[in-house]
Amino acid sequence: MVDPTSLDEIRMATDVEEMAKDAVRPDDRIDDERHDEENRLKRSYVARVRDALRDGDTQGVYDLVEPLHPADTADLLELIEEVDRANLAAAITDLMTPEVVAELNDHVRELMMEELAPADVATITEQMDTDDAVQLLEDLDEADRQAIIDELEPETQAAVESALSYPEETAGRLMNRHVMAVPEHLTVGDLIDYLRDEGDLEHDFYEVFVVDASHHPVGTCALNWILTTPRAIKLTDVMKRDQTLIPVTTDQEEVALMFQKYALISAAVVDESGRLVGQMTVDDVVHIISEEAGEDALLLSGAGDGDINEPIREAYSSRVRWLVANLGTAVVASAIIAFFGAAIEELVALAVLMPIVASIGGNAGTQTMAVAVRAIATNQLTRANTWRIVWRELRVALLNGATIAVLIGIAAGVLFSPEMGAVIALAMVVNIAISGLAGVLVPVAFERMGQDPAVASSVFVTMITDSMGFFAFLGLAVAAGLAPL
Amino acid sequence: MVDPTSLDEIRMATDVEEMAKDAVRPDDRIDDERHDEENRLKRSYVARVRDALRDGDTQGVYDLVEPLHPADTADLLELIEEVDRANLAAAITDLMTPEVVAELNDHVRELMMEELAPADVATITEQMDTDDAVQLLEDLDEADRQAIIDELEPETQAAVESALSYPEETAGRLMNRHVMAVPEHLTVGDLIDYLRDEGDLEHDFYEVFVVDASHHPVGTCALNWILTTPRAIKLTDVMKRDQTLIPVTTDQEEVALMFQKYALISAAVVDESGRLVGQMTVDDVVHIISEEAGEDALLLSGAGDGDINEPIREAYSSRVRWLVANLGTAVVASAIIAFFGAAIEELVALAVLMPIVASIGGNAGTQTMAVAVRAIATNQLTRANTWRIVWRELRVALLNGATIAVLIGIAAGVLFSPEMGAVIALAMVVNIAISGLAGVLVPVAFERMGQDPAVASSVFVTMITDSMGFFAFLGLAVAAGLAPL
Repeated sequence: MVDPTSLDEIRMATDVEEMAKDAVRPDDRIDDERHDEENRLKRSYVARVRDALRDGDTQGVYDLVEPLHPADTADLLELIEEVDRANLAAAITDLMTPEVVAELNDHVRELMMEELAPADVATITEQMDTDDAVQLLEDLDEADRQAIIDELEPETQAAVESALSYPEETAGRLMNRHVMAVPEHLTVGDLIDYLRDEGDLEHDFYEVFVVDASHHPVGTCALNWILTTPRAIKLTDVMKRDQTLIPVTTDQEEVALMFQKYALISAAVVDESGRLVGQMTVDDVVHIISEEAGEDALLLSGAGDGDINEPIREAYSSRVRWLVANLGTAVVASAIIAFFGAAIEELVALAVLMPIVASIGGNAGTQTMAVAVRAIATNQLTRANTWRIVWRELRVALLNGATIAVLIGIAAGVLFSPEMGAVIALAMVVNIAISGLAGVLVPVAFERMGQDPAVASSVFVTMITDSMGFFAFLGLAVAAGLAPL
Repeated sequence: MVDPTSLDEIRMATDVEEMAKDAVRPDDRIDDERHDEENRLKRSYVARVRDALRDGDTQGVYDLVEPLHPADTADLLELIEEVDRANLAAAITDLMTPEVVAELNDHVRELMMEELAPADVATITEQMDTDDAVQLLEDLDEADRQAIIDELEPETQAAVESALSYPEETAGRLMNRHVMAVPEHLTVGDLIDYLRDEGDLEHDFYEVFVVDASHHPVGTCALNWILTTPRAIKLTDVMKRDQTLIPVTTDQEEVALMFQKYALISAAVVDESGRLVGQMTVDDVVHIISEEAGEDALLLSGAGDGDINEPIREAYSSRVRWLVANLGTAVVASAIIAFFGAAIEELVALAVLMPIVASIGGNAGTQTMAVAVRAIATNQLTRANTWRIVWRELRVALLNGATIAVLIGIAAGVLFSPEMGAVIALAMVVNIAISGLAGVLVPVAFERMGQDPAVASSVFVTMITDSMGFFAFLGLAVAAGLAPL
């Protein structure tokens, strides 16, 4: 039945590059009339959809959208203006698959779901994987959510309610409840026979979890091990016993770090008593990794969620609170300046130069803080090496401070006076050194207090670098006798 | 042969939570004497290893390290002080597996490899996957690298040299050259038979790529589809034809976005003529996603690579250049202050208040910039919605500006004079609006020019917010007749 020459063509190819020559470019997703070279929907394509929509050409809209991958359809809904979204969704109802809804930006999805009847949302939810369904529901407000849950099939209802009983961003909330779990006495052949009879193609899985009689995971089998092993071999002889188990209460950030650290493709989620209750798979974790790693830049800047689809009201409220906090710290810096008012009145050069000291100090502090926050987030900066890293950052800061001090010292010395050059140079070294220390110590302190160091470090570091910059510069100028107090 | 009752226990479990009750906590990797609750090596454990090393207790060191997962052994080498690293590696030679070396931080690995003879590094390289081997070699300097390549087996040598012929951070450099590629006329049964005979367990794979006679990919088969399909079915009937192909020259950032967008587990890499030459798998992409998403916070702050293991000299040189650039922009702001020297001399309150305007403006600009840079990096801010987002950010900025203006206007009105309150309030609105615009327009402009918006946006946005802050405040004060020019 098997043509033996065909098998020669199968290979774990290390030499594929030397193979067949005559070739045409494959018809892939890139470089078509809808996507630009970076695989984003083209502006011209989005405009064509919008124009067809506004002309009421429903069939035209459908024909334009029909060839898209669900992820691209979701992108289209995000890219098109808000006023057109409901019409677009209406024009492509049967293309609005659960995959599209799952791929939608949280804020856009929330707005769209609010326009639908609970029964319609329930129909969509019913077809989604539990983890996606939960993501859809958790963002809605309490009343809307309950109305939809009431419409669900009892089985989905139970799964969704169980997920919602765990805190947000924990494994229990995020896990997929479909798990391929098999007893330990099976052979490879038993498993394959069972899968052929009973397996469904609907739920992808990458590993089979082997469990004991009380449903505790005892090992995992990668599917490629099963495929490369004779039928008679027992699963317990191919499975990997050393597995990473994720307790249901684990925070998503930690789940993401585990997947990265141990290069996992999927992992068993276990309840308090160690029984298998679900799995996390890498395709979901990929979104968490991207979100967790990307949010630090946003949190450090005080931009909150920082999503361009966030309603303006929410964006305003999350950002303005940090600006108000910044106003508080700026007032501290102002008070220090006011204290040296007489000196500035006498020597206006001080007012001209003082923002330079504060600005460079702020920048140096931000650099160190970004490094420290990232190192903490990736578990590289721990209790085991804190002091070594503080000392390292201080040395970098002293080198930076010395360099900047020479440059600004010479410039101020020439433009103003040698004494002024010396004062600003010294102030610069002091402020950059303090900034370097603050940049690492503040985030470390927040972490030790159980706070996310990315959230509030910025305000404190800025306050320290601004105040110390003004104080060091103006204080040294007075001490050097350049101006009166 | 198969016990029928056993098969009942196999299930795609949606109801696993209701299963077996009696249970003990599984022996997982968390909460042991080596790891803290966040799965990081404990300070006390690292100290025990260090003490044993310094006492010359080689066996003690070995016994401590032996139970560790390779990823933890790599962490240990990073956490321990630099002076102890070579001794630690010597004490655990046979635990220094290719997996450990592959998991090491780039900088730590580079330092350690420099201490070994080329032949020893070659032996390690030989046992690694090509993609890991290339990562190890690409960081070394030219001469060291060539010496090691010369020691490699011809086959590995060819694979490594082929990889190094592609630019850094492209699919050609990063891909795994081991691909499971099979011809299109096979059945599921043929494939399983072949895998049992010939497949090795050494290289994990998650999908089988189906290729035509000239080695062009025509579809992919997930392993779970193969396992759930009867033997007689042809692969072409189970495979997914709509696949994402990655050209060899694709940048890693784009590869990462494709994996996220299409929830890929692996993807075929094709050469210029569309032939299959390798694959990218999600476990490697996970590192790229984390790196690309995390580096924005570092780049925005001007901290360069921002790795705590980077040698001090490199950290200094990457950071000081941005401080020098910042010095340049601070001088522009200073020049504006100097221009208003007479006003400040007359009214020292201006010097006291002006840093507030600049500071809040800078913060508002940084918020918008962080949002814009993230949205560009995730392909959410594209040509199709740029003006909508600019308008959105301007509205958020005006709301923020109005709020802050009221607060500072009242405070300054009470503490100084109503005119001063009005001037600073108006200056604040102007500066925050400008900051909001600059925060989105500057990164968008860099992106359109083909530059990474995270790299240089900060310097420009800071310059704009500082200068405009001082100019708006001092200029309005003069215009209002509060002080002379």
